[in-house]
Amino acid sequence: MLARSQETLQPGATMNALSDLQATLDASRKSWVESANAPACDFPIQNLPFGIFSDGLNSTRRAGVAIGDCIVDLAALESAGLLTVPSSSASDSVFVRDALNDFIALGRDVWRSVRIQLSKLLSRDNPALRDDAELKSRALIRQADATLHLPVQIPGYTDFYSSKEHATNVGSMFRDPKNALLPNWSEIPIGYNGRASSVVVSGTPVRRPNGQLKLPDQERPVFGACRKLDIELETGFIVGHGNALGEPIPCAQAEEHIFGMVLLNDWSARDIQQWEYVPLGPFNAKTFATTISPWIVTLDALEPFRIAQPAQDPQPLDYLRHGGEHAFDISLEVLLKPQGAKEATTIARTNFRHMYWTMAQQLAHHTVSGCNTRVGDLMGSGTISGPTDDSFGSLLELTWNGKKPLQLKEGGTRAFIEDGDMLTLAGWCQGDGYRVGFGTCVGEILPARQ
Amino acid sequence: MLARSQETLQPGATMNALSDLQATLDASRKSWVESANAPACDFPIQNLPFGIFSDGLNSTRRAGVAIGDCIVDLAALESAGLLTVPSSSASDSVFVRDALNDFIALGRDVWRSVRIQLSKLLSRDNPALRDDAELKSRALIRQADATLHLPVQIPGYTDFYSSKEHATNVGSMFRDPKNALLPNWSEIPIGYNGRASSVVVSGTPVRRPNGQLKLPDQERPVFGACRKLDIELETGFIVGHGNALGEPIPCAQAEEHIFGMVLLNDWSARDIQQWEYVPLGPFNAKTFATTISPWIVTLDALEPFRIAQPAQDPQPLDYLRHGGEHAFDISLEVLLKPQGAKEATTIARTNFRHMYWTMAQQLAHHTVSGCNTRVGDLMGSGTISGPTDDSFGSLLELTWNGKKPLQLKEGGTRAFIEDGDMLTLAGWCQGDGYRVGFGTCVGEILPARQ
Repeated sequence: MLARSQETLQPGATMNALSDLQATLDASRKSWVESANAPACDFPIQNLPFGIFSDGLNSTRRAGVAIGDCIVDLAALESAGLLTVPSSSASDSVFVRDALNDFIALGRDVWRSVRIQLSKLLSRDNPALRDDAELKSRALIRQADATLHLPVQIPGYTDFYSSKEHATNVGSMFRDPKNALLPNWSEIPIGYNGRASSVVVSGTPVRRPNGQLKLPDQERPVFGACRKLDIELETGFIVGHGNALGEPIPCAQAEEHIFGMVLLNDWSARDIQQWEYVPLGPFNAKTFATTISPWIVTLDALEPFRIAQPAQDPQPLDYLRHGGEHAFDISLEVLLKPQGAKEATTIARTNFRHMYWTMAQQLAHHTVSGCNTRVGDLMGSGTISGPTDDSFGSLLELTWNGKKPLQLKEGGTRAFIEDGDMLTLAGWCQGDGYRVGFGTCVGEILPARQ
Repeated sequence: MLARSQETLQPGATMNALSDLQATLDASRKSWVESANAPACDFPIQNLPFGIFSDGLNSTRRAGVAIGDCIVDLAALESAGLLTVPSSSASDSVFVRDALNDFIALGRDVWRSVRIQLSKLLSRDNPALRDDAELKSRALIRQADATLHLPVQIPGYTDFYSSKEHATNVGSMFRDPKNALLPNWSEIPIGYNGRASSVVVSGTPVRRPNGQLKLPDQERPVFGACRKLDIELETGFIVGHGNALGEPIPCAQAEEHIFGMVLLNDWSARDIQQWEYVPLGPFNAKTFATTISPWIVTLDALEPFRIAQPAQDPQPLDYLRHGGEHAFDISLEVLLKPQGAKEATTIARTNFRHMYWTMAQQLAHHTVSGCNTRVGDLMGSGTISGPTDDSFGSLLELTWNGKKPLQLKEGGTRAFIEDGDMLTLAGWCQGDGYRVGFGTCVGEILPARQ
């Protein structure tokens, strides 16, 4: 793993920085924040994901890092002199912002430096913060007492369609089961522009959209509330270093442009979608809301979970080729909890490793025409479906367009989402005795506007 | 015309403000900036479009209004006490900004107040600025000495597809001439999300994109430079007042949310588009560049040119209905000038009045699902094609996918755009003895990246 990690470091990095970075991933490292050391905790010292939070005592939105059941207030550490931000020229703290963009824009060396400093500060044997009760009371906030906000201001949102299983399932249902996969799918990491304005953070209620529905027995469409409301289980990556207009990002360097990953629920109104999407793609069926998880897990934290992507046949065109391993082993699941239910039902379990096209290929394709990207851009993976019936990433596939409703734990069934349902995405990478988790990505459905 | 204008004013507006606004549209009003009074000048005193500029003496980007061959520096007038911005709480001038967003966000009453003040200040009989040589030398910049920048920071870009003639032409070429118009087209102002990052201002060179091309004689796509580079003649409107997530904009009120209009060239790589666009719509074929004109012509300035939209059959669903007239009589043309040519050839002449769906219907549809819009959002009309062969808004249609190349004035033909070609869109509303123009929207094509 050390060798693999070295490959992804910039040539200029010193061996010191290399070994420091490697140490942040050491499975045996423990934190003095004891909750971080529980095997099922999403936020061990190996993770250190970035987010934006506020709390009851301080309503200012500011940057934090999750550790166990707490959040480290980065600005508080910085003003106490325990954390330094190399190359920040801001007169105020780059951490006292509504979004992480200014911090991310400082570049990968800075993200890494902050990550390394935090890993040391939070290590069990480091007394600097551990034994400073006064500072700790200000700089360590319980997650239960905090509100998490959208972590980045998103200049552009693109959604891909990179699961072969998902594309095949959808093609089977809506086009031709014999030629389910369109000819361009195996050549292009197909993607389309999404709507950035309606990307919301986990926990934001989502209102069932109204729109045009084409009912089978009527000649003209009717206007009304979506009857086939669905999720799409996705991950998203956040661009950490953009590219200028006209200057494509080569596939082999694309991962250097990625800050980190989130969970993403691409809410979809299937009936609106089916009527509107030809020939220019989905629009109102998707633009009403997209939910992302609040913590951005850095690509550095995911390094130990890097694995080989599925074999690609045919061999992609040159501009989409990269040596090495570019998939990540991320377990994913979807839970549905009806209003008033005590327990949620797990309706799908899958893994990000199934994705046919890699994030690097997506970004290389996105920019190959010269299209520019910017810090904070969000790129959705597309629905992540696995090979088995219970590993599909949408109700459309899980219930085969409503024909095979799912049984819920406490009784009742679901073909599509009902009002009051709470949908939760969860994801994590399983390490040896710990896991690097994404937390959850949650949304409850409110009834349509009358 | 007075009555029509009154209808669109907010109920709270006083009769004074009403008559002041009406006076800004008075065809007989002349300016002491004599170049503004020429009949073919795009920027008479009746227009007063807003933009962002800088000049050799002052590289700070700031807000200006075009008058004749000059630009009025709004911050200079404000600091001299000749222009006041109601309800601005900024400590500095809202006009000293890289983009107009902060000014636009102050609301329609403020845009109107500034417009009314400028119309008075620039009137032939008003000595306040006219006779103040010192101030005039600072506040009036010749357009020839200035650089124009993107007028707004664009949070979101949506492109519609609202010309019946264009949709029919494309459907005839690529699908079925007998059923050229898809069934959803007459019910939905079809639109899709565009890429905001690559919207550039007029004058920015555009590099021919590379991408995947599917040649008819080959089984697999090849990678290379686009061979069918095209324009799309469009207008765009700028959202002046957004809506919150979950709160649709009613069709009857939609125009109140529009700040103004620009010309828009939706550059399109037809070969890349044809291979990639099924099933999620155009992506790389469009995301490499979109050019807009630098001056935003306010909806108030367009008021005298309001006319009835084409009859809609079938009657749109309720949420898309608005009484009254919501089309605008805007003459449009496209010019092509090959590298080294002395003169450009006019390759198309058409009019915005042909559009089937109105801007109000587009915005109502965009938000009916609950999708939010924000100040500065750009909404493209879709290619504007008229009913005749020489009124089509793209080379795809003008040359019928390259089969009928156009003759150029100085010899040679064009099926699609060649390297070094300069494409210019122009647009204006013809008044009695004056015209309210958009200026031009220009882009020269650079060879593809090797």
